[in-house]
Amino acid sequence: VTTTDSERSALAVDIGGTKFAAGVVDPRGRVLAAERVRTPPDGDAEELFAALVSAVQGALSAAGLTFGDAALAPAIGVGTAAPMDLTAGTVSPVNIFGWRGFPLRDRLSDRFGVPVGLIGDAVAVAVAEHWLGAARGHANVLGMVVSTGVGGGLVLGGRVMPGATGNAGHIGHASVDPNGPGCVCGGIGCLEAIASGTSLAAWARGQGLADAVDAAAVARSAREGDPIALAAFRRAADALGLAIAGAVTTLDLELVVIGGGVAQAGAVLFDPLAQAYARYAALGFARAPRVVPARLAASAGLIGAAAVVHRPDAYWPGWEWDASGPAR
Amino acid sequence: VTTTDSERSALAVDIGGTKFAAGVVDPRGRVLAAERVRTPPDGDAEELFAALVSAVQGALSAAGLTFGDAALAPAIGVGTAAPMDLTAGTVSPVNIFGWRGFPLRDRLSDRFGVPVGLIGDAVAVAVAEHWLGAARGHANVLGMVVSTGVGGGLVLGGRVMPGATGNAGHIGHASVDPNGPGCVCGGIGCLEAIASGTSLAAWARGQGLADAVDAAAVARSAREGDPIALAAFRRAADALGLAIAGAVTTLDLELVVIGGGVAQAGAVLFDPLAQAYARYAALGFARAPRVVPARLAASAGLIGAAAVVHRPDAYWPGWEWDASGPAR
Repeated sequence: VTTTDSERSALAVDIGGTKFAAGVVDPRGRVLAAERVRTPPDGDAEELFAALVSAVQGALSAAGLTFGDAALAPAIGVGTAAPMDLTAGTVSPVNIFGWRGFPLRDRLSDRFGVPVGLIGDAVAVAVAEHWLGAARGHANVLGMVVSTGVGGGLVLGGRVMPGATGNAGHIGHASVDPNGPGCVCGGIGCLEAIASGTSLAAWARGQGLADAVDAAAVARSAREGDPIALAAFRRAADALGLAIAGAVTTLDLELVVIGGGVAQAGAVLFDPLAQAYARYAALGFARAPRVVPARLAASAGLIGAAAVVHRPDAYWPGWEWDASGPAR
Repeated sequence: VTTTDSERSALAVDIGGTKFAAGVVDPRGRVLAAERVRTPPDGDAEELFAALVSAVQGALSAAGLTFGDAALAPAIGVGTAAPMDLTAGTVSPVNIFGWRGFPLRDRLSDRFGVPVGLIGDAVAVAVAEHWLGAARGHANVLGMVVSTGVGGGLVLGGRVMPGATGNAGHIGHASVDPNGPGCVCGGIGCLEAIASGTSLAAWARGQGLADAVDAAAVARSAREGDPIALAAFRRAADALGLAIAGAVTTLDLELVVIGGGVAQAGAVLFDPLAQAYARYAALGFARAPRVVPARLAASAGLIGAAAVVHRPDAYWPGWEWDASGPAR
């Protein structure tokens, strides 16, 4: 049996503040095997990298593949928590303190002997939802991840819009309130400081909801009618509505897709979000777009990272792969 | 003497809430002749159109040209106050009440017998500043017009980003404060409701600065040290700083260029704006970009509108001209 390029699978990596995932993804975007490990919470740079390598090895082992096999493309696609420097191939994720300017692209490439293509984790989600999920057929889309942090990625005119340094999509660190709380990034009133799962749960605890250990716990309380939990989601939804309305108005988007743990709260989040969006998006062209949940759930990050290997011409038409991965 | 395509001039139109301008612009972006008329403040649709036609005729007459001459490209480029519908060729400028869904593209095309290409007025300024002004050589730029209203246009990856309906760039109607004033668009706390010349002067009058007839008058008072006038510019600069930092963070821009009457206030605006920007743009990649005044002053709108005729392939690579103008 001959394996052609269009039949080869891709090794994809999804680096988040809570977990590292690696997976083998076929050309149609199906995740054939995956391995997830907890992000070492206080790990230094090498401990973090060792955890990542073990996730990659676990995924390859689960799929029964190694680099060099004809059935596996000789490349790795990576979606990483941000920010990062696309030119240098380094990452400095806000929520992964042990990596500051960490040369992730070169380290992974050296370790596995294949080129590595690096994109933001929320860009990966946006691409995955555009390729195979809720945003199929829409040319101008914001994809967001609302979980530990708040991230985003932009597909404009059908392609990924990387921005000057690969960091386009960072809507989580746009301010939504000049009188809002300080943010871990150093900003004031950032969307993430109000609407991330971390911020949402902390606010609920501060209001007296003692068992608000995380956003999922707050969502359970909200569905049971707890007024503090409902207020916590309304506060996050107001901030999301303002920020999303601003992005749609500024970019003339067709659709906004929200994934991540907080989005899994469902109507508790999306109902007040639709109301807030309608208050802030008043111009005609901005009223039409919809804000919808992601469809690909926890696999979106891996599927989008695999698109770096499977669909580079569609999403990154200016990129050219060299020995160390795609570079503009 | 033979006139080649690359030597022909273009007829350009700039439609604003305060004035209509028409000009003849050569292929290097020089305005050879221009005619400006005051926008009829309470004009109905036909009065407004008649004023526009007279501006076009005045510009042609001043240049000694008519359509059909070899020295004039048989097309009109229009930058219009927004919003608009690029597909239908209609305009509904927030500050020109007599035009709601007005078929500007077809009416102008019928009147002068040439195709008409329509873009937003702030998109025109962004293109002009990218082509020949303060943003030359930068691939990812937000151009803004802060005058009667607050508009914007985006050049991303070196091309105009039109958005789904041609309305990308509307940063003036992104909210900068959930507790801010209502906006003429129906939104809450829109940038325009705080930072436009109209809003800035009205706020100063409300604080007791009786001679604040417009932003230029407030700027004069601010330069003389009047505390209300200084506070009015600081308030506008804070709102602009928050919105611009959010746009730079979300889009990973390299440069923001601000034109329009309010920007002509100079340091009275740009000094507090730089301070506000620094407070809200905390991520590394967002700290580097600069916010600078436009260079092409009052002609930027005409020069950018002329780019629709002179430089369509560079800025709108997906557009194809048909009998009624460029369409995607």
